[in-house]
Amino acid sequence: MTAEIIAIGTELLTPFRQDTNSLYLTEKLNQLGIEVGYKTVVGDRLEDLISVARIALERAQLVIFMGGLGPTEDDLTREAVAEALNLPLRRDPDIVAALYARFASRRMKMPENNAKQGDIITGAIPLENAKGTAPGQWLEGSVGNLNKVIILLPGPPHELRPMFDVHCFERLRARFTDSRQYIATRLLKVAMMAESECDARVAPIYKKHPQVETTILGGGGEVQLHLRATAASQQKAEELVENLAEKLEEELDDFVFSSGGESLEQIAQYYLEMRGATIAVAESCTGGLLGERLTSVSGSSRSFLGGAIVYSNHLKTAFAGVPSQVIAQHGAVSREVAVAMAEGIRVKCKATLGVGITGVAGPTGGSEEKPVGLVYHALADGKKTEVVKRDFPGDRDRIRWYASQQALDMVRRKLM
Amino acid sequence: MTAEIIAIGTELLTPFRQDTNSLYLTEKLNQLGIEVGYKTVVGDRLEDLISVARIALERAQLVIFMGGLGPTEDDLTREAVAEALNLPLRRDPDIVAALYARFASRRMKMPENNAKQGDIITGAIPLENAKGTAPGQWLEGSVGNLNKVIILLPGPPHELRPMFDVHCFERLRARFTDSRQYIATRLLKVAMMAESECDARVAPIYKKHPQVETTILGGGGEVQLHLRATAASQQKAEELVENLAEKLEEELDDFVFSSGGESLEQIAQYYLEMRGATIAVAESCTGGLLGERLTSVSGSSRSFLGGAIVYSNHLKTAFAGVPSQVIAQHGAVSREVAVAMAEGIRVKCKATLGVGITGVAGPTGGSEEKPVGLVYHALADGKKTEVVKRDFPGDRDRIRWYASQQALDMVRRKLM
Repeated sequence: MTAEIIAIGTELLTPFRQDTNSLYLTEKLNQLGIEVGYKTVVGDRLEDLISVARIALERAQLVIFMGGLGPTEDDLTREAVAEALNLPLRRDPDIVAALYARFASRRMKMPENNAKQGDIITGAIPLENAKGTAPGQWLEGSVGNLNKVIILLPGPPHELRPMFDVHCFERLRARFTDSRQYIATRLLKVAMMAESECDARVAPIYKKHPQVETTILGGGGEVQLHLRATAASQQKAEELVENLAEKLEEELDDFVFSSGGESLEQIAQYYLEMRGATIAVAESCTGGLLGERLTSVSGSSRSFLGGAIVYSNHLKTAFAGVPSQVIAQHGAVSREVAVAMAEGIRVKCKATLGVGITGVAGPTGGSEEKPVGLVYHALADGKKTEVVKRDFPGDRDRIRWYASQQALDMVRRKLM
Repeated sequence: MTAEIIAIGTELLTPFRQDTNSLYLTEKLNQLGIEVGYKTVVGDRLEDLISVARIALERAQLVIFMGGLGPTEDDLTREAVAEALNLPLRRDPDIVAALYARFASRRMKMPENNAKQGDIITGAIPLENAKGTAPGQWLEGSVGNLNKVIILLPGPPHELRPMFDVHCFERLRARFTDSRQYIATRLLKVAMMAESECDARVAPIYKKHPQVETTILGGGGEVQLHLRATAASQQKAEELVENLAEKLEEELDDFVFSSGGESLEQIAQYYLEMRGATIAVAESCTGGLLGERLTSVSGSSRSFLGGAIVYSNHLKTAFAGVPSQVIAQHGAVSREVAVAMAEGIRVKCKATLGVGITGVAGPTGGSEEKPVGLVYHALADGKKTEVVKRDFPGDRDRIRWYASQQALDMVRRKLM
């Protein structure tokens, strides 16, 4: 059972854009026991598309096309797949009517070219696009003597993902059910530990579990341990990953912040709610990133009150109550200012916890004493204030990300 | 002149790893006037590799294989390409001797399997690997009646890049010198316009310029127009894109915010500095995202003073000076509160410009009167305050992103 994933779009053949949808789809397909055998990227030229479709239909049992379903002249996936399969397109009146209605509801006139999004390959089932205009398509049919499943999905990730999850995942499970392979996966996430250190600690353990495939990935202040087992029953597969996961969690202890796929901000918000705590932030070098991450979690208003972005020294004093003589004496990037920011914002916002971050994100502004990458993180709870000083590697983006990661991890550990 | 780039390795067909070498190679190839027509990812199975190699040799004039050159059982690229070309491998005694010497210099005995890294396709030139053991290969030859160039490169980026730069770039230039193709590109970025509307406006123009390839990409409140022309001289190619770019800019007028690749936040910061203006933000539903974007630009402290994340009503009053009766009368998500936030934060931070954003990011918290996606954006300059009300589609992330995009665009238009 081999799948091929085809990403369509001339922009994906430039140095600027890259297909990332295939990673998402691969994860889902693997959950169904379907392996990806080939990935292809091709541009918008009709002949190229047709030829790529023919090759894929020859060598894979499941072919997923991504992109090229929009209303523009460049969107030729429907035409190409229909041609490769020798099937005509039909214009679906319901889809076209829905397109007109969608534009009308926004008091806009639909441009004529939009109607081609209603072109469906004969025999295909249209897949509703909850997040955009272009429907997807699901088609089962014989190519030569072989039964194939062909799926057309839109390119934008926020359209592709829900469409695949809602309309394709269970259909694929039903369609390929006789393969009787059960797969269990587990993802352990580890905060603020180097990948090599993590691997050195866990390798002796997972090597004793060869039935579980273990992949270690690091980056951005987080290490992920992906576990995966295949067995003749779901229960057996779950047992295999569970058994290894327990031993890994024992070894890594409280460095593991999630075993259910949650992000660090979700875990921090989870603990805040569980403890009935509120939080406020005072950010300098992260410029709003910590607030943005905390509020990216739905329902965060129950625990996140707000805070201040205090780039200028004036605002460190005005919003976070940092005494100006502390800044004058120790400099804006200092342990003392971080502490005063955390304590000050906590009081101003009447929050249970206050966070202060100040550092040098670079690329300019560093000095011998306070180099680029130096960041102080403080967490105040009204009784005591802890401070963590770090020297982060990397560029501006990475330093800011690490700093937000460190602060979230301090919140998690505080409430754990 | 079409190139195909083939990435080899089963790990590249998992959800966790992705080929990024091809972006690097594409940039270099484009500099030589060589277009990438196809990218393929394939696993380590010999039959799959041979088949992929045959297809590529059929449809491309330049085929670059990446990976599968190491000493392990899985490393089968040499064998597969030799088989696809019907050429025998020969073991190069100089390379094998150098491999032995390399191990000996580290006082290690070379494992037997390492010798296969000396297998060279008959007629190929070995390419020295300055950063690892596996040499690359360069082969020119006829496939059918056509002359092809075939390159085998190692997979690790730190080995591949210098090998390509040192041993392949100039060879490719010399090899394809008679085609004398020069390429010019231009990227126009458009803010807050739907992709289909943008296409409807520019298609009649770019269709009159068939010598320029135009690709339209939309998403996240931004449409990108990628222009690209090939000509017999660099000057001619530049003229072609310049000519079309001018006409497109004329049509789209001030919706075009960048023609040099800059992001909207970079442009906003650019105008702020140019005007000697400072800015402060008061964010509710965006939770820090606008501040984060403005401060992602290096040097932003020259114009960005800071601001407040005012999730709670208490903080809207405390930090942004919004009178509590305005919140009581109109609700936290209202035109009046957005205006008061922008004006209040401007005064509190002593900035030239103040921005206020308040809205319903969802997924919960919406009502019939104030649905999810409703966002008010206000920009105050001390004389007048403008407000833009928008109903954004999409999920929490997208609504927040659109809102930050809208606010940045208002800043840009104000200072333009």
